[in-house]
Amino acid sequence: MKEKIIDASITLFEQKGFSDTSIQDIVDALGVTKGTFYYYFKSKEELLMDIHLRYIEELLEKQQEMMNDSTKTTKEKLLGIVYMLIHNIEKRGRQARIFFREMRHLNAEHLRQIKQKRDQFRYGVQALIERGIENGEFRQDLLPSIATLTILGAANWSYQWFKPDGLYTDAEVAKQMVTIFLEGIEK
Amino acid sequence: MKEKIIDASITLFEQKGFSDTSIQDIVDALGVTKGTFYYYFKSKEELLMDIHLRYIEELLEKQQEMMNDSTKTTKEKLLGIVYMLIHNIEKRGRQARIFFREMRHLNAEHLRQIKQKRDQFRYGVQALIERGIENGEFRQDLLPSIATLTILGAANWSYQWFKPDGLYTDAEVAKQMVTIFLEGIEK
Repeated sequence: MKEKIIDASITLFEQKGFSDTSIQDIVDALGVTKGTFYYYFKSKEELLMDIHLRYIEELLEKQQEMMNDSTKTTKEKLLGIVYMLIHNIEKRGRQARIFFREMRHLNAEHLRQIKQKRDQFRYGVQALIERGIENGEFRQDLLPSIATLTILGAANWSYQWFKPDGLYTDAEVAKQMVTIFLEGIEK
Repeated sequence: MKEKIIDASITLFEQKGFSDTSIQDIVDALGVTKGTFYYYFKSKEELLMDIHLRYIEELLEKQQEMMNDSTKTTKEKLLGIVYMLIHNIEKRGRQARIFFREMRHLNAEHLRQIKQKRDQFRYGVQALIERGIENGEFRQDLLPSIATLTILGAANWSYQWFKPDGLYTDAEVAKQMVTIFLEGIEK
């Protein structure tokens, strides 16, 4: 039932937004009572935190695996991370939209926790770029923090436009993005 | 008074979100009556549309000027557009955050109009990239639509992180981004 509550809430939060979705809306969608809801979650905010935590923790776990893969070069790891983000939007677009749109409805303590995990993900990418600068794969004049935010921004923004049934697959989009980041658009 | 209502609403929408801000909150912040509000706006949604329209129309106008400037190369125009977006977030960060976060609270007709104007801006950038491919400045294997969304995504995402009092100025951030887009991060 917990999974069903989360799933119904994701649908409603995406359609109506977090603020305009009531616990009544959620239980009505499932044909259960409010008591059932409160058995699993203390509040609507706690449910939102649950959605946020699952989203970011899965990404962090996969990022960690990728970073520790000693068979991959820095460039391959960068491609792997961008592909993971686009693929995630293909597979979990509803959760992604809630993650990006509704974060400010978390309470202060939860917001702090989620921001910390988002920072951790960002620093993972930045560490990769710094390693590439050090080992001579990447340009020496890069600003690692801005380069990281440029790459993550482009990949994250795809939650606004990437369509699983669109002209290009997630792999094609990731490949094109990483080609631009690595080689630039200039001839 | 109209400007004061818009300004107070932008502050409240940014802090509390559109859904959680009432017309009462807006008039309380200004010490006026609801009658004053309704003299200028039919509804809270109409006010939101006003904020959206001002934001996107100013960007479109400046983009048009830049595109028609025959003294600039394609690359310079691209830098100009990225700089304009970051500079706008420096100068009008509150409006930018509302523009990106609250669009789905527009009614269907208004949403259609704003999406059309956002598309127009995007096609402007895409036309620039297509011109660069044609005239040999840019790579022949680019996917113009994905390249456009990559560049606009990275620039737009800066509304989430760019701080006017941060380590780098808007001009430095724009220059670094455009260097990455044009030349890539590879050595």
